[in-house]
Amino acid sequence: MNWMTEDFLLHNEVAKRLYRTAAAQPIIDYHSHLPPDVIANNQPFANLYEVWLAGDHYKWRAMRAAGVPESHCTGSASPYEKFLAWAKTVPQTLRNPLYHWTHLELKRYFGIHQALNEQSASVIWEQANERLQSPDLRPQSILKNFAVRVLCTTDDPADDLQFHRQLQAQPDLPFRMYPTYRPDVVFAVQQGERWRAWVQRLSQITNIDIRGLSDLMAALHHRHDEFHRLGCRLSDHGLSYCFAVDGTEAEAAQVVEKLLLAKGTADLDIVDPAAADRFGGFLMRQFATWDFEKGWAKQLHLGARRNNNQRLRQQVGADIGCDSIGDWPQIDRLCDYLNDLDRRGTLPKTIVYNLNPADNYAVATALGNFQDGSLAGKLQWGSGWWFLDQKEGMTWQLNALSNLGLLSRFVGMLTDSRSLLSFPRHEYFRRLLCQLLGHDVVQGELPDDDQLLLPLVKGICFENARDLLGLAMP
Amino acid sequence: MNWMTEDFLLHNEVAKRLYRTAAAQPIIDYHSHLPPDVIANNQPFANLYEVWLAGDHYKWRAMRAAGVPESHCTGSASPYEKFLAWAKTVPQTLRNPLYHWTHLELKRYFGIHQALNEQSASVIWEQANERLQSPDLRPQSILKNFAVRVLCTTDDPADDLQFHRQLQAQPDLPFRMYPTYRPDVVFAVQQGERWRAWVQRLSQITNIDIRGLSDLMAALHHRHDEFHRLGCRLSDHGLSYCFAVDGTEAEAAQVVEKLLLAKGTADLDIVDPAAADRFGGFLMRQFATWDFEKGWAKQLHLGARRNNNQRLRQQVGADIGCDSIGDWPQIDRLCDYLNDLDRRGTLPKTIVYNLNPADNYAVATALGNFQDGSLAGKLQWGSGWWFLDQKEGMTWQLNALSNLGLLSRFVGMLTDSRSLLSFPRHEYFRRLLCQLLGHDVVQGELPDDDQLLLPLVKGICFENARDLLGLAMP
Amino acid sequence: MNWMTEDFLLHNEVAKRLYRTAAAQPIIDYHSHLPPDVIANNQPFANLYEVWLAGDHYKWRAMRAAGVPESHCTGSASPYEKFLAWAKTVPQTLRNPLYHWTHLELKRYFGIHQALNEQSASVIWEQANERLQSPDLRPQSILKNFAVRVLCTTDDPADDLQFHRQLQAQPDLPFRMYPTYRPDVVFAVQQGERWRAWVQRLSQITNIDIRGLSDLMAALHHRHDEFHRLGCRLSDHGLSYCFAVDGTEAEAAQVVEKLLLAKGTADLDIVDPAAADRFGGFLMRQFATWDFEKGWAKQLHLGARRNNNQRLRQQVGADIGCDSIGDWPQIDRLCDYLNDLDRRGTLPKTIVYNLNPADNYAVATALGNFQDGSLAGKLQWGSGWWFLDQKEGMTWQLNALSNLGLLSRFVGMLTDSRSLLSFPRHEYFRRLLCQLLGHDVVQGELPDDDQLLLPLVKGICFENARDLLGLAMP
Repeated sequence: MNWMTEDFLLHNEVAKRLYRTAAAQPIIDYHSHLPPDVIANNQPFANLYEVWLAGDHYKWRAMRAAGVPESHCTGSASPYEKFLAWAKTVPQTLRNPLYHWTHLELKRYFGIHQALNEQSASVIWEQANERLQSPDLRPQSILKNFAVRVLCTTDDPADDLQFHRQLQAQPDLPFRMYPTYRPDVVFAVQQGERWRAWVQRLSQITNIDIRGLSDLMAALHHRHDEFHRLGCRLSDHGLSYCFAVDGTEAEAAQVVEKLLLAKGTADLDIVDPAAADRFGGFLMRQFATWDFEKGWAKQLHLGARRNNNQRLRQQVGADIGCDSIGDWPQIDRLCDYLNDLDRRGTLPKTIVYNLNPADNYAVATALGNFQDGSLAGKLQWGSGWWFLDQKEGMTWQLNALSNLGLLSRFVGMLTDSRSLLSFPRHEYFRRLLCQLLGHDVVQGELPDDDQLLLPLVKGICFENARDLLGLAMP
Repeated sequence: MNWMTEDFLLHNEVAKRLYRTAAAQPIIDYHSHLPPDVIANNQPFANLYEVWLAGDHYKWRAMRAAGVPESHCTGSASPYEKFLAWAKTVPQTLRNPLYHWTHLELKRYFGIHQALNEQSASVIWEQANERLQSPDLRPQSILKNFAVRVLCTTDDPADDLQFHRQLQAQPDLPFRMYPTYRPDVVFAVQQGERWRAWVQRLSQITNIDIRGLSDLMAALHHRHDEFHRLGCRLSDHGLSYCFAVDGTEAEAAQVVEKLLLAKGTADLDIVDPAAADRFGGFLMRQFATWDFEKGWAKQLHLGARRNNNQRLRQQVGADIGCDSIGDWPQIDRLCDYLNDLDRRGTLPKTIVYNLNPADNYAVATALGNFQDGSLAGKLQWGSGWWFLDQKEGMTWQLNALSNLGLLSRFVGMLTDSRSLLSFPRHEYFRRLLCQLLGHDVVQGELPDDDQLLLPLVKGICFENARDLLGLAMP
Repeated sequence: MNWMTEDFLLHNEVAKRLYRTAAAQPIIDYHSHLPPDVIANNQPFANLYEVWLAGDHYKWRAMRAAGVPESHCTGSASPYEKFLAWAKTVPQTLRNPLYHWTHLELKRYFGIHQALNEQSASVIWEQANERLQSPDLRPQSILKNFAVRVLCTTDDPADDLQFHRQLQAQPDLPFRMYPTYRPDVVFAVQQGERWRAWVQRLSQITNIDIRGLSDLMAALHHRHDEFHRLGCRLSDHGLSYCFAVDGTEAEAAQVVEKLLLAKGTADLDIVDPAAADRFGGFLMRQFATWDFEKGWAKQLHLGARRNNNQRLRQQVGADIGCDSIGDWPQIDRLCDYLNDLDRRGTLPKTIVYNLNPADNYAVATALGNFQDGSLAGKLQWGSGWWFLDQKEGMTWQLNALSNLGLLSRFVGMLTDSRSLLSFPRHEYFRRLLCQLLGHDVVQGELPDDDQLLLPLVKGICFENARDLLGLAMP
C-alpha cells in the first residue's frame, strides 16, 4: 500500500518533528471498556475474530449498512464466515474511520500491510491467527508494547473487582490497571425489576442490608472506598443529560422505599420520569461529594440515545450498534449541576464528553465558568467521543478547545474501547495533534519554538493526565 | 474569465482523473420539482426570464437583500427589467452559490463565458434568447444533453398525472419521467378549508366518495397504486419534524369526521395541534406500509420553517423565498418513527434530508440504527438540501456521511429544482466529490487504487441510485 | 519572533494585495463597551495593568483555567503581581485567540515584538509602562492612530451621557463617539428591587414621574430622543432569546403597576416568567417602532447564558468571565418577532448576533426572510461575537454569510470590547477576510478582478457600515 506511510497525517516537517516527541510518550488510557478478566488472565486469543470482531459494534453497524445479515454480525455464523463478511465490507468503508483503524491495527499488531478485502481475507486470517499465538500478542504484552502505563476499566459498584485484585497481585508489571466507578444502574429506577436485582447484588457484595436510601448510599459509599483502595481515581456516568439539580434526600428516599416495598414485578414500574430525574439529581450530588473528598475526577458522558432499535435490542441485546446521537438541550442542566457543586464547595475535577458536536461550543464554554483557579485544568472538555472519535470530530474538538479554553492543559486521548486492538487510536490522535500544531507553525500562526511546543505535546499526550488524575504508576 | 476553468474545483491530478469517470455517468435526478407539463409539451422557452428567473426563489431572496424592490422580483416589472435587476445583483453575490450556478448555467446551456452584470446584461439577454430558439434548448433536448436517464417530479396524490401519461406515450425518449407521491396537504388538518377542498379533488380523481377515514385511506391508496403503475418508486414528505408515532386509527377517524361534518368555513379550524400531530402519525405509518409493500423509497425532508413572512405570503404567495431553517428537536421523533416501522416489519427504504446542518451528525447516526442488513444502503442520509446545496453544505454532508456511515452506498445528488437549468448542480457535486477523494489520496489517507476509487465514484454518481431505487430506465 | 509577520494570515499574493486595500480603510467601531469617560477625559493610563488587564474577563477565564487564584485575577494582588500571573499564563494559551491578540497588541501599541512569558514579563512591564506615558497612547490618540472615524459605546437609557456631551464639545477631533441605546434593565422585572431602583434613576434623569406603563414608556422615549440628538443611530438588546411576540399593553401595564405598588423589597419578586416574557415582548415592539421611525439599526445579541457561577457572582460581580453559550431554541421566536414588525410596517434595520455557532445557519437564513428590498443589507447577520470572535468563529460566519446571504452587503467587524487595546481585532478580521477571498481567487472559484474584489473589501471594511448605519462622521 502506497498510503498510511510512516508520515501518515503529517504534512510538514514541523509536524513530523513534533510527532517524534509525541510518539515517545507513554499512554495513560484513563477511560476504556476493556474486560479486566482478559487482562488479568493474560490468555492468548483464539483467533482474529475473537480479538477483533466479537463485541465490535462499530463494525456491525457498517456491515448492516452494507447489507450483511445479522447472522454474520452478531448471529450464528462461524468466526471465519463473520470475518469474511467483514473483509467484504472493508472496501465499502472508504473514508470511514474503520478503514483507517482496520489497516492501522493490521499493521501495528500483526505486521500486515495488505489491504483487507474479499481476496486477501483468507491469507490475512491465517497470518493473523498464527501471529496471535506469539507471546507478543497476549493481553499484557500488548499493553507493554504500546507503552501503556495505566489502564482504567469501567466498572459497576456491584462488581467484585476480583480481576483487578488478581492483577494487582502480579509482580513486576510495567503497567497498572484500575477500575472506574460507574453506577449507571442505580439511576434506572424506572426499570424496577432490573434496579432491584442490582440492589440485591450490591447488598451481597457489601454485606449491607439495603432497606432504604441511607442503606443504599452506605453501600455505594462502601464500594467507592473499596474502588479507591484498588487505585481508582475516576468515576463515570453515562447520561442523556444532567439530572435536575434540586432533588432532595426525602424525595430520593421515597423512590427507594417505593421500589423496595413493591411486591410483584408488575408493581415495579412505579417511578415517574420527574421523580426519577430528581432521584438522579440527589445521587449525583452525593457522588460528586465523594469524588471531591477523595480527589477523584468525575467523568460525564452526555447525549447518547441508546438502544434505538427495539427489535435488535430484544433479539440481540444492548451495545450492539443501535445507539446514536441525541439532540436534547444540555446546557441549563449542566451549568446548574456544576454551579450547585461549586457553591457547596464540592466540585470535583470533572471531564465532560458530549456526543453531539453541535453542542461543542456550548459545552466547552460552560466548563470555563467553573474553573476556579485551584488547579490547572480542573474542568476538562473530553476528547472526541464515540462517533466523534475520528479525524473530523477530533479536529473539531481540538480546535474548539484551543479557541475556547486551554489546549495546553488538556488531558488528551483515551481509547474508550472494548478491544485491546484499539491502542493505535492514541497514535492517530497524536498524529492529528502534531499536524494541527505543525500547520499553525508553518502558517506563521505559532512560533517555531520547541520550548513552547514540546511541553504542549508532552502535556497533552501524557503529562497532563499524569499530573491531573493522580493515578499511581509503576 | 480566468476562473471556473475546466478543472473547476479540482486541485490535483487524482481528482481530475476521477472526475473524468464521474462526468461520464448518466444522471438519475430522483428528486426535483420540475413541472411535468413543460417536459411533456416540450415547448421552447420564450426567453431567458421564463427559463431562468420566473419561479426562482433563490434569486429573489438575493435580490431583496440587495435592495431590489418586489416589483422587480415577483412583481409587475417586465421580463427584461427583472433580468436587468438580477444582472445588477449578480456581482453582489460573490461567494454565494448563486454566483457559481449563474455562470455555470450560462456556460453549459448557452456557451456564454462572460460574467453577468449590469454592463453585460443586454448582450447576454440577446445571446441567450437567440440560443433558446435552438432545438437544443427545448426541455427534452436539455434532458438528453445532460444524459438524464430518469427524472422524478414531485406530485400531489390529487393530481391527475396527465402529463406523465402524455410523456410516457411518446416513443424513443432517451429518458423516463416518473411522479413522486407527496401527500403534504392531507396533513394540513389545521387549515380546514384548504384540506376539505383538497379532499374533494382527491374524491373526484378517484371516484371515491370520501365520508370518513377509511374512504380517505382507500382514495390515497388508490392513487398510490396509480402512481406505481406510472413508474413511481418514491414518496416524499415535507415535515417540520416527524409526527407523534402513536396516533391511533380511532383518533385519525375522529379528525376526518370533524372536518367533513363541519358546516361553515368558520367551523373548519377545529383540529388542535396535538390531534393534528397524532393524525399525522397514524397516516405516516400507513404510507410507510404501502411504500414498503411496493418496494418504494420514502423521502423525509425535515426542518424547513416555511412562509415566515406573512406580508409577502399574503401579497405574493408560497415558495417565494421566505422559507428558512428551523431549530426544532428532530431525533426523538425520527428514531421513534423509524423504530415503530422496523418493529412492525414495514420499514421501507428511506432517505432523510435535514435542513439544519446542526442536526447532521445526529440524523446521520440515527439512520444507522435501522440498517437491517436486508439491503445495502437501505437507510440513506440525503444530499445537502436547499440552503445546504452548496460547497460548504455538500462538503459537510459528504464528510459526515463518510465518517458516520458508508459513503460508498450513497445514492448521491439530485437537483431538487424547479428549473431545467439546474442540471449543472450534478456537475458541481461530482467535482466536489472527486476533489475530496483526490485530496485524501494525495494526502496518503486513501490508497491510490482505481479498483477501489472508480466503483466508489460510479456508485455515488449513478449506480447506487440505479440499484437501490428500482426506477425503470430506457 | 519568526511568526505573526507582516503577512500574518495572508497566504497568497491575491490575499496580500487585497489586504493593502483593506488596511487602508478607516474604522467604524459601531459596537463597543468602551467607557465614555476614558475617551472624553483623555487621561494617560497609569500602567499596563490598567489599560490591558483590569476588566478583561477573557484573560481571567484563561488564568483560572491555568490554576491562577482569584486574588491574581480580580482580587487584591498588586497590578504587577496580576500582570506577572498573566505573563505566566500566556504560553499556556497557545492556539487560543488570546495568544494572537496579546502579541498583536504588544506589537501595534507598544512596538514590543517579544513573546510575553514569565521571563520577559518584567522587561515588557517596564517598556510598556514607559511607552504609556507618550501622548501617542492617550485614549484619543489611540483612536486617531487606528483611523477610527466613529466609535459607538453601549449605554443605559438612565445614563446621563455627560461624557458624550463633553467629548462632542471638543473641537477638531478626527473621530466621533456616539452612545448606543441599550435598555436591558427595563426587562429585569423579575429582579424587582434592581428594576425599581433603575426606574427611579430613569425618572430623575427625565424629570418624569413614573407611575405606570405610559410614564415609563414616555421616559424611555424621551431618552431615545435625547440619544438621537447626541448622534446615536443604534439600539442594542442582550437577550437569551427573543420575547413572546404577543404581549399586550394591558399585560405590560399590570407588570409595571405590580412593581411600582409593591411595598417591601420582599414583595418585589412577584412577576412570573411568563408575565416577564410578555412584558418584554410588548416593550420590544415599542422599541423597534421608535428605532424604525428614527432610521436606527437595532442590534440583538442572542444566546448568552450569563453569570453561571453564583459563587463568583456574589464574590466578585457580573461580567467577570463566568458567562457562556446557551443552547435554547432561537428561531421560532426570532422569526415571530421580525415577522410581527414586518407586518406592522415597523421593522427597523436589524443586526442579529447569535452566540451559539450551532445556530449560525438557522439565524442567517431567518434574516433572509425579512429582507424587503427597501434597502440593501437591511437585515444583517452580525460578525462572530464574543466566543466566536476568533479565526474559526469568524471564518464560519463569513462562509455561512457568503453561502446564505450577501457577503458584499456585510457591515463587518466591531470590537465589542471594553479595552482601547482591542482595535487590532479589525486588522485580524481584515486579514482573514482577504485570505478567504484570495484563496477563492487562487483556487479559481472567484474571478481575479479588482473591479469586483476591491468594492467588496472596501464595503465590508468600511463603506457598508457608513452607508447603512447613517452615523455622522467628521
